[in-house]
Amino acid sequence: MNRKEFSELLNQRVLFLDGAYGTEFFKMGIRGRMPIELLNITNPDAVYTLQKAYVNAGVDFLLTNTFSANRLKMQSLKVKENIKDINFHAVKIAKDAAKNSNVKILGDISSTGILLTPLGELSFDEAYEVFKEQGEILLNAGIDGFIIETMSDLKELKAAFLALRDLDNNIPIIAHLTFEENGRTVTGTSVEIFATLFNDLDVDVIGMNCTLTPEEMIKVFQTLSKYSKKPISVEPNAGKPKLQPDGSVIYNTTPEKFSVYMEDFVHLGANIIGGCCGTGPEHIKLMREFIGKTRVRKRETIKKQFLSSRTILRETEPFLIIGERINASGKKNFQNAIREYNFDRMVNLATAQEKEGSHVLDINLGIEKLLDKKHFEKSIIILDKIGSIPLSLDIQQPEFMEVALKEYVGRPLINSSTVEKEKLDTAIRWLKRYGGMLILLTMKNKIPETAQERFEIAMKGIKYLEENGISKDRIFVDPLVLPVGAKKDPFVTLETIKLLSEKGIKTSIGLSNLSFGLPSREGINASFLSLAIHNGLSGAILNSKESSTMNIVFGSLILHGMEVSRDTSTSTGDEL
Amino acid sequence: MNRKEFSELLNQRVLFLDGAYGTEFFKMGIRGRMPIELLNITNPDAVYTLQKAYVNAGVDFLLTNTFSANRLKMQSLKVKENIKDINFHAVKIAKDAAKNSNVKILGDISSTGILLTPLGELSFDEAYEVFKEQGEILLNAGIDGFIIETMSDLKELKAAFLALRDLDNNIPIIAHLTFEENGRTVTGTSVEIFATLFNDLDVDVIGMNCTLTPEEMIKVFQTLSKYSKKPISVEPNAGKPKLQPDGSVIYNTTPEKFSVYMEDFVHLGANIIGGCCGTGPEHIKLMREFIGKTRVRKRETIKKQFLSSRTILRETEPFLIIGERINASGKKNFQNAIREYNFDRMVNLATAQEKEGSHVLDINLGIEKLLDKKHFEKSIIILDKIGSIPLSLDIQQPEFMEVALKEYVGRPLINSSTVEKEKLDTAIRWLKRYGGMLILLTMKNKIPETAQERFEIAMKGIKYLEENGISKDRIFVDPLVLPVGAKKDPFVTLETIKLLSEKGIKTSIGLSNLSFGLPSREGINASFLSLAIHNGLSGAILNSKESSTMNIVFGSLILHGMEVSRDTSTSTGDEL
Ligand SMILES: [Zn+2]
Ligand SMILES: [Zn+2]
Ligand SMILES: [Zn+2]
Repeated sequence: MNRKEFSELLNQRVLFLDGAYGTEFFKMGIRGRMPIELLNITNPDAVYTLQKAYVNAGVDFLLTNTFSANRLKMQSLKVKENIKDINFHAVKIAKDAAKNSNVKILGDISSTGILLTPLGELSFDEAYEVFKEQGEILLNAGIDGFIIETMSDLKELKAAFLALRDLDNNIPIIAHLTFEENGRTVTGTSVEIFATLFNDLDVDVIGMNCTLTPEEMIKVFQTLSKYSKKPISVEPNAGKPKLQPDGSVIYNTTPEKFSVYMEDFVHLGANIIGGCCGTGPEHIKLMREFIGKTRVRKRETIKKQFLSSRTILRETEPFLIIGERINASGKKNFQNAIREYNFDRMVNLATAQEKEGSHVLDINLGIEKLLDKKHFEKSIIILDKIGSIPLSLDIQQPEFMEVALKEYVGRPLINSSTVEKEKLDTAIRWLKRYGGMLILLTMKNKIPETAQERFEIAMKGIKYLEENGISKDRIFVDPLVLPVGAKKDPFVTLETIKLLSEKGIKTSIGLSNLSFGLPSREGINASFLSLAIHNGLSGAILNSKESSTMNIVFGSLILHGMEVSRDTSTSTGDEL
Repeated sequence: MNRKEFSELLNQRVLFLDGAYGTEFFKMGIRGRMPIELLNITNPDAVYTLQKAYVNAGVDFLLTNTFSANRLKMQSLKVKENIKDINFHAVKIAKDAAKNSNVKILGDISSTGILLTPLGELSFDEAYEVFKEQGEILLNAGIDGFIIETMSDLKELKAAFLALRDLDNNIPIIAHLTFEENGRTVTGTSVEIFATLFNDLDVDVIGMNCTLTPEEMIKVFQTLSKYSKKPISVEPNAGKPKLQPDGSVIYNTTPEKFSVYMEDFVHLGANIIGGCCGTGPEHIKLMREFIGKTRVRKRETIKKQFLSSRTILRETEPFLIIGERINASGKKNFQNAIREYNFDRMVNLATAQEKEGSHVLDINLGIEKLLDKKHFEKSIIILDKIGSIPLSLDIQQPEFMEVALKEYVGRPLINSSTVEKEKLDTAIRWLKRYGGMLILLTMKNKIPETAQERFEIAMKGIKYLEENGISKDRIFVDPLVLPVGAKKDPFVTLETIKLLSEKGIKTSIGLSNLSFGLPSREGINASFLSLAIHNGLSGAILNSKESSTMNIVFGSLILHGMEVSRDTSTSTGDEL
């Protein structure tokens, strides 16, 4: 099954996944401390029997019995068997069970059980390799697609997804996080953050499973259905776990109740439904019969654009305030501190700018020749650790940008690209691989003098980006602000903003450059900002410590009839 | 001699006044403690002899020997003789001396010797009556014109001038202040303040006399020649006074030196020259011969507009900041304090707003039905007393405005008139009688909805004002700011500003009205102000405590290439 075939299947009707494995093996009398993935070798008949029951229940997909069968998890469970054997046999058994049916096999993948930086010690690259290793075995064994399940860390999910996608560009991948009732993972990532990041990525389906009962999960899933532009899938548990006298747990949502609940998910536009802990062949069978062959409900998804960190989502409309102060350019002490991995000042500036009302933090580490990849990696990780607001990655060297994008958890702003083919191609690759939005400068190798020229260059860049799959609502055009001087350049910038805004193009400027070297900087910046917002400006990298400038943002928006909230953020910023 | 004839004389050549009287009588052996004005009765021959000498010296004007011959000064000098006799005889003697010549007689008037409020206890009205009394006697005796000399208080000069002008609309009046070397009177009024106020008034000539030697006076006179649009006159002393062993004082600038110096004043454009203390017929004769029949030098006068208080001059360009906070409307405690003549809050607000950078203070005493004339009189006097910056008189009732204008010392901003004939006629009368600038509202009895209508109404009002002798540079048009609401009114105001500014019309708005009842007021005000300045706004009544708004003023001006100084005032504000 390639992705096109999978997509066609998704277009036909609501599809069905299988149910739980662990609780079913327990019912079958298989009780012990061994991880159930070992059954693929020690008791393949048991696995076959269960999977055959799911096939008979009418599933469209069987999941391989490989949930924990990655190297790191198996090590921590003291499993000595070769993970290659465990995964290979799992696929073989599933294929046997699916024989003579249309049932497809999804390679099941979940967490390593070790937390990635900054939550734990595992690096992104290590995690990536672990998932790649397991994925490669499953692929070679002949699966039809992947499902990444029960992940609670967006960064680990990203590592797993990128590893699998890098293995095969044409294999369907379903990516799940598991959420608590508040709509966030235990690591603080909300459904909205998950959806808005994965909307950009080359994933086939996103969804959620485990932790919640169907009735708890419905509200969380409703949010997913609003925010996800991808097909969506869902596997709730069969109720709350209850510990039994014999040490087992049972889940008491009956197959009948479960089926009725699952119809609600279909009403919200679910493309794929199945069961997680506590569900068995009876649940799946009844659900399958109850739902039947149903067309997928059309969903209206949110049109707005968002940036996010791991825990904080910022709508970019009506105006994006990007704090400029984490910038080591021309600041020797700051630059030296970063070189010595002293991030105190960076952290203080992040906290201060969030308090001042910045929505996003621009990060510029200064003279890049003095730095190496580690400085970028550590900077991103430290800001993730403190629960920072979203970042604007103001990085020149592509290799450094790549590191930052890899470590970044959320949907970043990539700052920036000129309208030169090589630069645009790189930006397109980043936007597709890591997600995010782009600041596009209205220039090739030099800044055009007239507004018309700047406008035309921007439109050319946008056209190229759109032709390459980057929609224009993911782009902020920067019409370039030069210092106030002899030339009337500020008014060229204003005119460029107007031309772009009349075409519905978002614009953002580096405001403070305007008043470089002048007195009354705050007043000059604020005055220009009011004129720029009047002309349609939709964002600015600015000094949020300047209260006049901040007042202008909110005042201008009210003056122009836009609703604004002056809350500084949607999170306390210290969740981790 | 009527004013037209006087004006024709002024156009022909430099004219000559006479010299001193007191020092000359002393030389003639008349020594005593009696005021010299008594000589008009006790020794008319002595007066005749001196004046005849001045006529022979070649003067164009003789001054009557009536310098101190007003009721109050005579009382304080214990003179019991009737001032009617003293003044009447003075004119008779001067006329005799001038017989068979072209010499004209100027009735000489000076201070009452008692300070006006707030410097002393004398009221404006009392002073006015004293000058009117003396002026009427002189007029009835047949003088050709008046000269008001050696005044050191602008308010007293104003009282004297208005009294004389009210007596006869067609009599020439020359008005002098006496300045110290720093270019200010002892009461703190600068030459610039004097000139810019009297430019508006129906005076024939303004000038200076006494206190300074010619060399000290030349710089002060140079300033007058730049700022005065009226013909100018000057009478320096003949050097510094030196006390002699016999108790007399002598002035040792010789007639030769004096004449050479006086040529410098002619070079600066003096229309009338003469001598004050220490000058005698020899000085005048030699000066007359040395200067000869000379055409008056053309002067370039300053085109800018200024507002002033007694001691502080504010250029209105490039942008006039009018502090709004002395406004008792809707402030019950403030209103009650004013009713009880408690001006503490008013004084604090005046000081605070000056510190914040306001150029001018708007004064609105709240509900005028609750007030009487005394409240307006006392308010103006208290602000004069503390050395306040210039005022914008925001007063509805004409009778209250009249009181305020009378007591005001300097060139005020009259706030405001609609474009209705009766209102305009009243404003024209005030502008001509008391001087100042006007805020003209772009409305008749209701506010027009479109910018074009507001513009046309304003242009109609300006035309009427210009036809009645009020030049358009004395007018700020207020295109009316309404609260941000459902209608797009703020943008109508912006468009009106643009239309007016394209015609070179100055505009000013009541900024804070925009954000009435809204949150983020400061931001809304500041944002709008930036747009308005971009469209050409030249002033605003605003809350100078809003640092964003103040920053916008200075930032916008720099952004638009205008030079600005952020000094909060030209004076310390506590000179009195
Ligand atoms: Zn589960
Ligand atoms: Zn004198
Ligand atoms: Zn402009």
